Amino acid sequence: MTHTPRTARTFSPPVMEARRWLDGVDFPIDRPLINVSQAAPVDPPPEPLRQIIADAALSDPQAHLYGPVLGRPDLREEVAHQWSSTYGGALAAQNVAITSGCNQAFCAAIATLCADGDEVIVPTPWYFNHKMWLDMSGVAAVPLPARAELLPDPDEAAHLITPRTRAIVLVTPNNPGGVEYPADLVRAFYTLAQQHGLALIIDETYRDFDARPGAPHDLFADTDWDQTLIQLYSFSKAYRLTGHRVGAMVASPARLAQAEKFLDTVTICPNQLGQIAALWGMRNLSQWLAGERAEILDRRAAIHDAMPKLAAQGWELRGCGAYFAYLRHPFAMPSNELAPALVREASVLLLPGTMFQPEDSPTAGHELRVAFANVDRAGIDTLFGRLAGLRWPLAPAPDSA
Amino acid sequence: MTHTPRTARTFSPPVMEARRWLDGVDFPIDRPLINVSQAAPVDPPPEPLRQIIADAALSDPQAHLYGPVLGRPDLREEVAHQWSSTYGGALAAQNVAITSGCNQAFCAAIATLCADGDEVIVPTPWYFNHKMWLDMSGVAAVPLPARAELLPDPDEAAHLITPRTRAIVLVTPNNPGGVEYPADLVRAFYTLAQQHGLALIIDETYRDFDARPGAPHDLFADTDWDQTLIQLYSFSKAYRLTGHRVGAMVASPARLAQAEKFLDTVTICPNQLGQIAALWGMRNLSQWLAGERAEILDRRAAIHDAMPKLAAQGWELRGCGAYFAYLRHPFAMPSNELAPALVREASVLLLPGTMFQPEDSPTAGHELRVAFANVDRAGIDTLFGRLAGLRWPLAPAPDSA
Repeated sequence: MTHTPRTARTFSPPVMEARRWLDGVDFPIDRPLINVSQAAPVDPPPEPLRQIIADAALSDPQAHLYGPVLGRPDLREEVAHQWSSTYGGALAAQNVAITSGCNQAFCAAIATLCADGDEVIVPTPWYFNHKMWLDMSGVAAVPLPARAELLPDPDEAAHLITPRTRAIVLVTPNNPGGVEYPADLVRAFYTLAQQHGLALIIDETYRDFDARPGAPHDLFADTDWDQTLIQLYSFSKAYRLTGHRVGAMVASPARLAQAEKFLDTVTICPNQLGQIAALWGMRNLSQWLAGERAEILDRRAAIHDAMPKLAAQGWELRGCGAYFAYLRHPFAMPSNELAPALVREASVLLLPGTMFQPEDSPTAGHELRVAFANVDRAGIDTLFGRLAGLRWPLAPAPDSA
Repeated sequence: MTHTPRTARTFSPPVMEARRWLDGVDFPIDRPLINVSQAAPVDPPPEPLRQIIADAALSDPQAHLYGPVLGRPDLREEVAHQWSSTYGGALAAQNVAITSGCNQAFCAAIATLCADGDEVIVPTPWYFNHKMWLDMSGVAAVPLPARAELLPDPDEAAHLITPRTRAIVLVTPNNPGGVEYPADLVRAFYTLAQQHGLALIIDETYRDFDARPGAPHDLFADTDWDQTLIQLYSFSKAYRLTGHRVGAMVASPARLAQAEKFLDTVTICPNQLGQIAALWGMRNLSQWLAGERAEILDRRAAIHDAMPKLAAQGWELRGCGAYFAYLRHPFAMPSNELAPALVREASVLLLPGTMFQPEDSPTAGHELRVAFANVDRAGIDTLFGRLAGLRWPLAPAPDSA
């Protein structure tokens, strides 16, 4: 019998692989690199928030000590309070765990649900770190291919449920697709999960940049939501805290008691300064965050505005929202060859669809993800101009003329 | 078939359980709580280090951004440099990964080695988070009971090796036992692991408080050390950074490429401020750390000085070193009942041996761990006086008269 350790069952981190494409490449002065590979703000947090972190480092001894495994009580309380208001529910601090980033919240959720041989239904294109964790956990990620508008179909999901299915995972707004799942679609998945005794995991990392007013779904209004729903959240994007590693998992107290075992063993507790920053951000930066959202929505509009010149060259915009535009390119070259080639040919770093799809996906080779949050209107125009102008030996795909 | 998710296969975090024993307890004014349950400094880092963190938060934009999965290059380089000097080896930055605490380094190491059904040999008493991670990973922790002086025997370990064995785990200085493993004992385990194609994982979290001068072992001097050895380290104890979550894993570049998959998925990267603090500490606090070590060694001496009055009541000191004294108590009550009772009866919080042993251990019921790092000489004298004075209905154990 071949012995395969857990990490040998999955692929290398896509973002790190893409970074290596930059090794040894010199970019022309008149065509500097446009890096749209990672979904992260590159500006630091606003100055008052940096000051709060600095003050805590200097004056708050607790900022340097172990805290509770499930996070600081004040931050858990604040999340429960704001969520209750935003989503129209009645959440308590006991429904909230703070994690070392939202990826860790996903890992913890799966550890409370699954063991080797289990199955989890995941719409494709999927978020690669979800797939990696399922691989390493011995859990089959059962792909649910999204339809043309990048929305998954609950009826198709129903056909994928087996006795080994433990959960359905949704990411909305979607990474990599950018699409925002309608509230009634989220509700349909919730009902499906409920009927089959499954968990519905919803990753809302990009929630704060949803274009729609109000809550993106009404599931927390159900009194027994925590029997089915596990919500994941990140403080990284809202408050520019990617380097601090702070996320959240919202679920039943019983599930969080199970998650506590995983979190204690993997990190002991979330780091304190990140939690202090997240709490201050929640309490003081709502106006500032509204401005951030408006800026992202304007960049999203800029994608749509710039799209005609790409469309004229045979490109399609499959999805657009939050930090992402998901494109279909017109070339015969598969995306996992096109993306690294674009570094030299166009000074553009982005990720190919193959990183977000099962290996046998018929569409992944045509797809590219653009994480546009760090590129302003002018930059988006330049980026799309470079893509529209691609002329080096690139043949159009036979089926896209 | 019963379905058991990963987290349902292990126990709840012992430190959190022990904290709950304090709920609702009022301590007499003349007998305040002595908390020797957790191995963590309670004082903040020295002021210059706090200032470095504050300055970085205010002025270094990188301090707030994602960094490389395996950690900041400057910190990896510094660890390689100092380790090469301390251990007499030739380590490169590519041998070092920075993790979100040393627990995470252990989890990552196991993920690169094991899958369901594998076995790892662990001397007992063991560190509970190691046992928890093995449980959740579907890996059997094969207990190797330590001998009277709390040292494991490589010859006994040899008899436990099966075709499913992947690694042997040593913790030195030991948690919970306090003992420092002699260099030739560590070497004997290394040779055993090498002969059988196993990994030797050595957790050196408490290395900086080892009483011996010089390196605790010479394994890094072997040119092919990284084919066998995986060393784990924590910056938390040395620089009082427990709340910042920074540890390290030292291994072959090939193994770290595997660990990168796990670390990316579980936390994306270690938080930046903690890494900045660890690097500054390594470069600037060696004199300060020498003072910290001297203080810990003095407290260790205080344990020995105070021991006669406990010994007179039938107690034994099984091991003492680093942050820990491991005691054998003389009562008929098992340690998992005695420890919670001590909160009310003696205003003492410590962990029972049952938290560090397999359920069928014949000795665990007699054992208690005292994490003495936060208690000065006078406090240790008070603590031992309270233990020696225990008089409430407690019968001596039949076998300890």
